[in-house]
Amino acid sequence: MINKIHHIAIAVKDLEASARTFERILGVPPARVAEVPTEKVRVAFFPFGGAEIELVQGIGADNPVANFIAKRGEGIHHICFEVDDLQETLDRLAAAGLPLLDRSGKPGACGQVAFLHPRGANGVLIELVEKGPADPVPR
Amino acid sequence: MINKIHHIAIAVKDLEASARTFERILGVPPARVAEVPTEKVRVAFFPFGGAEIELVQGIGADNPVANFIAKRGEGIHHICFEVDDLQETLDRLAAAGLPLLDRSGKPGACGQVAFLHPRGANGVLIELVEKGPADPVPR
Repeated sequence: MINKIHHIAIAVKDLEASARTFERILGVPPARVAEVPTEKVRVAFFPFGGAEIELVQGIGADNPVANFIAKRGEGIHHICFEVDDLQETLDRLAAAGLPLLDRSGKPGACGQVAFLHPRGANGVLIELVEKGPADPVPR
Repeated sequence: MINKIHHIAIAVKDLEASARTFERILGVPPARVAEVPTEKVRVAFFPFGGAEIELVQGIGADNPVANFIAKRGEGIHHICFEVDDLQETLDRLAAAGLPLLDRSGKPGACGQVAFLHPRGANGVLIELVEKGPADPVPR
């Protein structure tokens, strides 16, 4: 089952400058900055009201975020929903005919995650994250 | 003060077909469908976990959503934050040098709203909605 919006990810070129911008808008500083080498990204999280705004900058030249920005410019990159059981949700969506980028979970910035293909969701890249007992990235 | 993410709006070409797609993904039907003639849009809301997914389709040929889709394709159109006091927030953001599309509130699908300019927020179109005592659109 999908519980809630976990975070909205915004692709940016300069994580520090963008974090200052969003601190001005949101009125709060980022709660944490983390690096996810497996995804070639650095992220800054602004939590409030049960969901988070995640700024995400690619590491190096060839990574999904830099490629996204080169093609579409900075902007909202994906939306992430929290689910109770990731594999069960992926099985349900696959059975419903939705195209998946990941058929099972993989480690993300916030726990086990998987992505759906944007072509099955009106161009929206959707990430699913399994609700965990604890956050694997130190705050 | 910004309280929380109020909704994420996704620009779509066909509201009914897209609502069926998101019903399959989210596991719930839209709670309401509404028309906002002043904005030339029809919207479908999927509420869960304190925020909403809003599908938005333009009405007629010349409207902001159709123009967005013509330029960028279907996808996430804007993110909306709930604020306690809209005018106070707009004044604070203007004083901080952020470019605003609306200097004061106007009627939206969920109450008084205003938009920030995407060029001040890494390409993200941000809507603010004032927390209201009641929802003006019948559910």
